[in-house]
Amino acid sequence: MRAKVQVFLKPGVLDVQGKAVESALHGLGWARVDSVRVGKTIEFDLAETDRTKGEAEVKAMCEKLLANTVIESYRIELA
Amino acid sequence: MRAKVQVFLKPGVLDVQGKAVESALHGLGWARVDSVRVGKTIEFDLAETDRTKGEAEVKAMCEKLLANTVIESYRIELA
Repeated sequence: MRAKVQVFLKPGVLDVQGKAVESALHGLGWARVDSVRVGKTIEFDLAETDRTKGEAEVKAMCEKLLANTVIESYRIELA
Repeated sequence: MRAKVQVFLKPGVLDVQGKAVESALHGLGWARVDSVRVGKTIEFDLAETDRTKGEAEVKAMCEKLLANTVIESYRIELA
């Protein structure tokens, strides 16, 4: 299965990269853009056919390596 | 509307960050993980109700600022 993990800073944590993108877009004339957040996406193949097991495994990867759960939240999608 | 842009390195372009995550996951015991790619996600609010216009606007932002189209591809989702 193909797993997709999206990691974002939690609401309330200052997203400086998002702020930078926002002011760059404003500077280029897109003034109607607001609340920009920048996150990262990690996609990978996982040799597992059982959806439940796969999800548990990806969740463990997020908690241990892919996300810093103090300041970041994550979303898992399996396809 | 809320726009979500996903930017990934094009296939064939070496993804060093992906390779680093892959070897870290292997090192932690997840040997069944393969083909890791790391990309970025940019989410923002756009004050536009027309879907077609909104999509064209976000596409222009990608071409001009959000993605380096020489080495990166992007996907747009509007919600």
